[in-house]
Amino acid sequence: MTTEPRYDVIAIGNAIVDVLAHSTDAVIEDLGLTRGGMTLVDTARAAELFEAMGPTAQVSGGSAANTLAGMAALGARCAFIGQVADDPLGEVFAHDIRAAGIAFATEPRAGDPPTGRCMIFVTPDGQRTMNTFLGSSQFLPAAALDVDDIAASAVLYLEGYLWDPEEPRAAMRRAIEAARGAGRKVAFTLSDPFVISRHGDDFRELIARGQIDILFANEAELAALTGIEDCEEGLAKLAQDVPVVIVTRGEHGAVAIAGGERAQAPAEPVERVVDTTGAGDLFAAGFLFGHVRGRPLAECLRTGAICASEVISHFGARPEIDLAALIAERVG
Amino acid sequence: MTTEPRYDVIAIGNAIVDVLAHSTDAVIEDLGLTRGGMTLVDTARAAELFEAMGPTAQVSGGSAANTLAGMAALGARCAFIGQVADDPLGEVFAHDIRAAGIAFATEPRAGDPPTGRCMIFVTPDGQRTMNTFLGSSQFLPAAALDVDDIAASAVLYLEGYLWDPEEPRAAMRRAIEAARGAGRKVAFTLSDPFVISRHGDDFRELIARGQIDILFANEAELAALTGIEDCEEGLAKLAQDVPVVIVTRGEHGAVAIAGGERAQAPAEPVERVVDTTGAGDLFAAGFLFGHVRGRPLAECLRTGAICASEVISHFGARPEIDLAALIAERVG
Repeated sequence: MTTEPRYDVIAIGNAIVDVLAHSTDAVIEDLGLTRGGMTLVDTARAAELFEAMGPTAQVSGGSAANTLAGMAALGARCAFIGQVADDPLGEVFAHDIRAAGIAFATEPRAGDPPTGRCMIFVTPDGQRTMNTFLGSSQFLPAAALDVDDIAASAVLYLEGYLWDPEEPRAAMRRAIEAARGAGRKVAFTLSDPFVISRHGDDFRELIARGQIDILFANEAELAALTGIEDCEEGLAKLAQDVPVVIVTRGEHGAVAIAGGERAQAPAEPVERVVDTTGAGDLFAAGFLFGHVRGRPLAECLRTGAICASEVISHFGARPEIDLAALIAERVG
Repeated sequence: MTTEPRYDVIAIGNAIVDVLAHSTDAVIEDLGLTRGGMTLVDTARAAELFEAMGPTAQVSGGSAANTLAGMAALGARCAFIGQVADDPLGEVFAHDIRAAGIAFATEPRAGDPPTGRCMIFVTPDGQRTMNTFLGSSQFLPAAALDVDDIAASAVLYLEGYLWDPEEPRAAMRRAIEAARGAGRKVAFTLSDPFVISRHGDDFRELIARGQIDILFANEAELAALTGIEDCEEGLAKLAQDVPVVIVTRGEHGAVAIAGGERAQAPAEPVERVVDTTGAGDLFAAGFLFGHVRGRPLAECLRTGAICASEVISHFGARPEIDLAALIAERVG
């Protein structure tokens, strides 16, 4: 028997600040960037890409942190675990996440590397091409976990991006044990097809062992994970091992299977797609918020779609308007 | 006789990065901020205000620098003089201004204070309340001026905000001499009524001595400078000593007198006013661009109004869309 949770969701993710600039397809090509993807970069490449960017805007990011920012805006009680450095950018990240109403207790890490950043080139179609310098994020130690907080949260949410570096991977494995040991749910977002190409075996094993309760994927990630091109077929296969599976399909909306029930929702129309950074993160925010509030599956999907539509209509991956009011108006 | 200018405009201004957050009137009141104004803050107050802000977005700012960013986007050749520190925020400012196509050769200043920043609270009506920690900006030395560049620019553009600290004030006086000695024009923006309450005598003396060729003011600044409440009357008075005077009137548009000719333009309609930060700066950009291109006075005003409308429709004081295309479409 579990006690009343202290948090609706506790997340472990990259603690990074996004550096966004408008760009062009020609620049993406000249620099040899992976259009629409997320590529890890080292210090030298990060400096080179920054140099090549247009005028920037800096907004806190990180996939799971963005999701929490959305959930907190909707009224969920949230906590975040992630590693910043003891530097000005780390202060900005910590400020922003706390100012969003999210508990954040991970101590800043002294010395090099600096706080992580993600250089995002946004093309005129709104597509984002991300180049991540993980910085201190990759050194999140298992010791930074507050196991009590994890055991006291209804859902543990993990971002696949953070499976790359060794220390956070170990921390996340330990967090999964802590959550499951306390009878809590584990939610996982697959993040990127290339992450799956590197760690798909780990993910498939976690799923086969029944360690994942809620799984978020887009179509490319679903195909990479299952080896099945057809979306419905891949979804049905995952649903055999995962109680709640959600597949986002960009402009085609999203589909989910939970406990044998299938539901879908169209994408929410937007006047102009400015920057798709954070679309998946905010979809997950809306869905998970509905889920922890026990809403019907179709409503969870629709809430996700509306949150995603807000974030792609402006620069940056954190919500800019009152999401709770938006959802109250459109969903009720 | 003057030679063909190397730059259309060279500006001296604060080199600061804006830290913007959505806020409420209650927060403005609780913190004792001057709603709609610009207040200088010290290190301790800056830290206190940052702590009290919501989640932030960071975008390079500085009044004159914003104006140049607009002019460069329209196709003008621009150079900027301003003092950043040798720190990460200074790198961001320098990157952003150069990435906008603006020449920027001022060497970063070593040691404390750090690069300046402006904490901007944006209320739901789009009004911005600015709290500026000048940092290194206030130590711009006269020695940082490239007198050759000033003499080789069609217009020297100065921001009134920078009249507060002593060293930049001396630098600007020297720059005025250099520009006038080379037969160039001097443009000045009054920036803020409180700046005028501190330095109005200096400004009135410069004007009386015929040192200012182009003057930008809003209604409150015009009244503070002239002591005349009526806008048309104040404008007519200034026009006796200043060849080109422009008064911006917010939602009521703008009016100007140049060489005895009077013209006006309405404000350009916007769907939603998100953040008025930079409205005056971008109005100046559009007007000055038209002016250096020798366009009719009414067209200069209209170009200014369109540039202002773009910048108030999003967060941050630098243009986000292709201003040249926007002007080509609406003005021709």
